[in-house]
Amino acid sequence: MTTGTDAVPGTAGVGSVAAYLAAGRQDVDAALERLLPGPDAWPSALHRAIRHSVFAGGKRLRPILCLAAGEVFGARRELVIEPACGLEMIHTYSLIHDDLPALDNDDLRRGVPTCHVVFGEATAILAGDSLLTHGLGIFAQYPRGEAHASAKVRVLQAVVEAIGTQGMIGGQAADLEAEKESAPTAELVARIHENKTGRLIRASLLAGAILAGAGEDELARVDHYGRRIGLAFQIKDDLLDVESDAATLGKAAGKDSAHGKATFPGVWGVERSRQILAENVDEAVATASSLPGGGGVLPELARFVGSRKS
Amino acid sequence: MTTGTDAVPGTAGVGSVAAYLAAGRQDVDAALERLLPGPDAWPSALHRAIRHSVFAGGKRLRPILCLAAGEVFGARRELVIEPACGLEMIHTYSLIHDDLPALDNDDLRRGVPTCHVVFGEATAILAGDSLLTHGLGIFAQYPRGEAHASAKVRVLQAVVEAIGTQGMIGGQAADLEAEKESAPTAELVARIHENKTGRLIRASLLAGAILAGAGEDELARVDHYGRRIGLAFQIKDDLLDVESDAATLGKAAGKDSAHGKATFPGVWGVERSRQILAENVDEAVATASSLPGGGGVLPELARFVGSRKS
Repeated sequence: MTTGTDAVPGTAGVGSVAAYLAAGRQDVDAALERLLPGPDAWPSALHRAIRHSVFAGGKRLRPILCLAAGEVFGARRELVIEPACGLEMIHTYSLIHDDLPALDNDDLRRGVPTCHVVFGEATAILAGDSLLTHGLGIFAQYPRGEAHASAKVRVLQAVVEAIGTQGMIGGQAADLEAEKESAPTAELVARIHENKTGRLIRASLLAGAILAGAGEDELARVDHYGRRIGLAFQIKDDLLDVESDAATLGKAAGKDSAHGKATFPGVWGVERSRQILAENVDEAVATASSLPGGGGVLPELARFVGSRKS
Repeated sequence: MTTGTDAVPGTAGVGSVAAYLAAGRQDVDAALERLLPGPDAWPSALHRAIRHSVFAGGKRLRPILCLAAGEVFGARRELVIEPACGLEMIHTYSLIHDDLPALDNDDLRRGVPTCHVVFGEATAILAGDSLLTHGLGIFAQYPRGEAHASAKVRVLQAVVEAIGTQGMIGGQAADLEAEKESAPTAELVARIHENKTGRLIRASLLAGAILAGAGEDELARVDHYGRRIGLAFQIKDDLLDVESDAATLGKAAGKDSAHGKATFPGVWGVERSRQILAENVDEAVATASSLPGGGGVLPELARFVGSRKS
């Protein structure tokens, strides 16, 4: 689980993936603080609701993957940090809306009461809308300068495709439909997960690599890596839901099966799900290792995704 | 209310603003049909919900203003038609979310049952999210070609600013807050309306003008025109709510005062509101007339906004 100091380009002095994640999270939190209006900005209830959910203590996995992919192709962190935050805003929007009473009806997220519990449904809906709007807007704004216009347009197209009706939102809609079915097929479960969770993870990596100027063949490999860790992430999520308690997860445990949700353990059982998880992590590590500099911290991040505790 | 055939550049053979609006609506509807996935595309309930609201019979005012502003600066309709549709998608997203039970709780819109009434709240929330996502995505995709990258980025920034927390969403959030107050001030009513309705109208005009290559001074005048007709549009909306019945409006009438909504007639009375409406239309006409070719159809569109019956 640890890498030598020199094994991770652009992260001199960081001796382990845990330290890399902690440093990344700190950078992302600081940039989010800069990018979001303060709690007193008009209209203040809306901005307080936005900040409540954004600063509820996420792992910042998507922005960190964006930064890490950028580093593999030589991008300074300053070039990619704001777009990385855009991805976290979009992730947070999806959580706020998924948690609403009409959707998953979750009261607890990241260990704190969900947005609609604290601020009411109307403000939570608008807070999600705001984070989607400004999350996408960030890709048009950063990195600054005419020279980046084409890369920005490309990143925007990749992210919109990933989170649209045939991506993340489509996966969420299909997940709602699947709750009505008695036994979702393995194919349906994989399709839902690849879209609902996987696509934004893939787009996060692509965004970093595109902004860093990666070539087409490299982008294809980054995308393959992203697909594998996206699946690994969701299988691990499903397994944690079965194996953990709410105190560890920071959200209600055992809810997936209670809600008839489509899950990997539900279709494949726990043991086979663990195997599929390991296979996806191995494939991600192998793919990342073929990138410049052995993929920097990407192989270690894949192992982290498969072994995390919450 | 009618213009000579030669008075409207790019609309030869169109003898009146009514015919211009009808033709524009037809072009926009055809392009929306091309841009949106069909009702059977996966996941189908979501796509049916999206199409239900988009094709519920709107006036297509925002896309038509975008096309008209583009024409003033010589843009062929083919260059601007898809971005124009993006604006209608964003407008429709805002209607779907505003109509939700947690917000305005409206059952009728454009003469047909609202999205959540037909498809349920969860799907309506996701349909709104989808239209926001793909509406913004269209500005990254169209017009096609590297040469337009800088203009696309600029349009995206203008639209995001217009619809964000200090624009359209902010206006909606402030409107919800204002319902709790006993007597909203004239300043607050103007601020809510300028943001909730006016900003997207202004951005629609700017988008067309930016894509057509208008200069900075011209953009400032287009924006001033947009601000005036945005206000005129909302004052007229408030007056129609007081004066009309549901059959004419295609939505519930008299709801604003019943809900304690901040309105112009509520603050200024009907007579003074009519005066303010006329002043804004006159100012819009004068500003548009100073643009190349006398502003094309823009002066007539301002008069239409102030005199429409629904």
